[in-house]
Amino acid sequence: MEKTFDYDALWRFTKLVFVSIGSTEVHAALAATGLLRADLRGVDSHGIARLSGYIRLWEANRANASPDIQLVHETPSTGVVDGDGGFGLVVAPYAMDRAMQKAEQVGTGWIAVRNSNHFGIAAQHALKALEKDMIGIVMTNASALVAPTFSTERLLGTNPICVAIPAGQEPPFVADLATTTAANGKLEILQRKNQQAPEGWIQDASGNPSTNPHELKAGGALLPLGGDRDHGSHKGYALGAIVDIFSGVLSGANYGPWVPPFPAYVPIPADMPGKGIGHFFGAMRIDAFRSSAAFKKDMDQWLVRFRTAKATPGFDKVLVPGDPERITEADRLKNGIPLMKSVVEDLEFIAEKFKISPLN
Amino acid sequence: MEKTFDYDALWRFTKLVFVSIGSTEVHAALAATGLLRADLRGVDSHGIARLSGYIRLWEANRANASPDIQLVHETPSTGVVDGDGGFGLVVAPYAMDRAMQKAEQVGTGWIAVRNSNHFGIAAQHALKALEKDMIGIVMTNASALVAPTFSTERLLGTNPICVAIPAGQEPPFVADLATTTAANGKLEILQRKNQQAPEGWIQDASGNPSTNPHELKAGGALLPLGGDRDHGSHKGYALGAIVDIFSGVLSGANYGPWVPPFPAYVPIPADMPGKGIGHFFGAMRIDAFRSSAAFKKDMDQWLVRFRTAKATPGFDKVLVPGDPERITEADRLKNGIPLMKSVVEDLEFIAEKFKISPLN
Repeated sequence: MEKTFDYDALWRFTKLVFVSIGSTEVHAALAATGLLRADLRGVDSHGIARLSGYIRLWEANRANASPDIQLVHETPSTGVVDGDGGFGLVVAPYAMDRAMQKAEQVGTGWIAVRNSNHFGIAAQHALKALEKDMIGIVMTNASALVAPTFSTERLLGTNPICVAIPAGQEPPFVADLATTTAANGKLEILQRKNQQAPEGWIQDASGNPSTNPHELKAGGALLPLGGDRDHGSHKGYALGAIVDIFSGVLSGANYGPWVPPFPAYVPIPADMPGKGIGHFFGAMRIDAFRSSAAFKKDMDQWLVRFRTAKATPGFDKVLVPGDPERITEADRLKNGIPLMKSVVEDLEFIAEKFKISPLN
Repeated sequence: MEKTFDYDALWRFTKLVFVSIGSTEVHAALAATGLLRADLRGVDSHGIARLSGYIRLWEANRANASPDIQLVHETPSTGVVDGDGGFGLVVAPYAMDRAMQKAEQVGTGWIAVRNSNHFGIAAQHALKALEKDMIGIVMTNASALVAPTFSTERLLGTNPICVAIPAGQEPPFVADLATTTAANGKLEILQRKNQQAPEGWIQDASGNPSTNPHELKAGGALLPLGGDRDHGSHKGYALGAIVDIFSGVLSGANYGPWVPPFPAYVPIPADMPGKGIGHFFGAMRIDAFRSSAAFKKDMDQWLVRFRTAKATPGFDKVLVPGDPERITEADRLKNGIPLMKSVVEDLEFIAEKFKISPLN
């Protein structure tokens, strides 16, 4: 049911698609690189499988393929970027670059973004900081699928937080996590296979616990990390809320239940208080705190200690955040990216529509 | 079994105790205010119940009652503070003030702290930012009680994150959360009552799930927020790790399993790579992003929308992080702070030791 494709071929194809809808060469290349980083890292739900979704957003006039992205407000360590309705895949690199420039100048840089769209995986943008010996921090809000603790209403997105931290000899620390028990992509897998979800992932429309993966279509909700109050769901709720406020309220984007949805067939909420969806980017220069050498020595010791910790029965070893994705990335760069039949058919349809040579 | 005391009386008593062990008037007042904020906000495990613990740390020469706190490195937006082994209750206000000064100047300020000790509740320090229309961010590492996902070893503390966000007319957003399923204080309550813990809070020394609240004494561990892999414990682990690295590795403090423990009878780990425990403080000026007025209007709308969301059956309403603590604080300021008999006896013992008039 799967076919495997070379990264370069998928990249060229994706870039051509973005050029076909009016993106500049530079923006199309950024978008292709960002989107496919998800496939490389094994986050298949956020990769090329979403290309048709991006196109439908553009067709519905809900995304701008040739945005004029602007820094509209700034201080030495902060700024606000207006994405002009562009794809987040293009807006995010602009904003992260600004954050890193400010970090070069005053130690850290913090950019809130409004008027953007889905930006792929957060790690793609945070990883950039590592090249300059900086810590990268990335957040985004998203349309409301998550019910706060004690709420029957969906008020938050899966609102991820990513933090990438450089190291010396050891592979770096890269945490990229939705602030829910399970990311929406994992639920989609259960939906396709028609399998029940573990308890603590979802609730029904009345707020009762459910294991039905189709519950969201009937007004149910994903649950914050923790699952229920006894297991700390109020903490996952708080973390998702922080991401929403930093990304949406601080930037002048939409927030809470007013964040516009990714699927173009889902109507935009009424009375939106802001512009588009919001992101938040941070960059902290390591040597704004300690010498990079001293930091990396300690960071390596940290990483080795955790990676060599004694594992629980039945498990091979203790992983550091980012380890599974790094291993997948190395494998897929070498051996290709497997795509499901439905995704391949989607790409064939896109090729025909834009008169692009199909993949083979 | 409880007796209720006036806040002012407890404050004067606590201040006298710190003066008795050599703290300056200013430091003693800071320490008393910080410690008692926990009691006011209902976090009884972190309040005056710990006063005897602080004294024992000082008696063991593991805390310095008259520290010379220094900013040892800085850029326009960052700095590192060496706490000179002082109580975190005193070191933290110094560091938070520095972060806020930098935010005044360049939009944001970020201070990593080494060579400190337990600082009470994180919220006490983050709340300060609200007075200046800033967002306050506070983290600290702590001695290792938590096992990462798949690990039998305890490598992380309960490592809290606090984020305080100002609002307009509405009470503010104040999230203060340990990155574990349950804070250690909650486990202590179960231990006292000899009650079983819910599943997902703890594991035994071999890494198997356990509901025995005494498991930690036998080599067991608290579990990261999420509880197990199916419920996202790798995310709670990642969050606790981020707090540890920001607080410990970035500052030159100890980290992971090398963080010195609070109880003076627990030996200090061998081969500590850094100095004391570490904290991390951030302050972001709201108007470094948007006008305060525009932000507060949206933040009020956010807060009202969440506070008035439809509640699940059996629950009165949806809470915003910080609501329960704010309500408790108003009540205890007015009606007094209830203390358990064992805590009162502890304070009587302290009064006798330092020739201070006992509470009554």
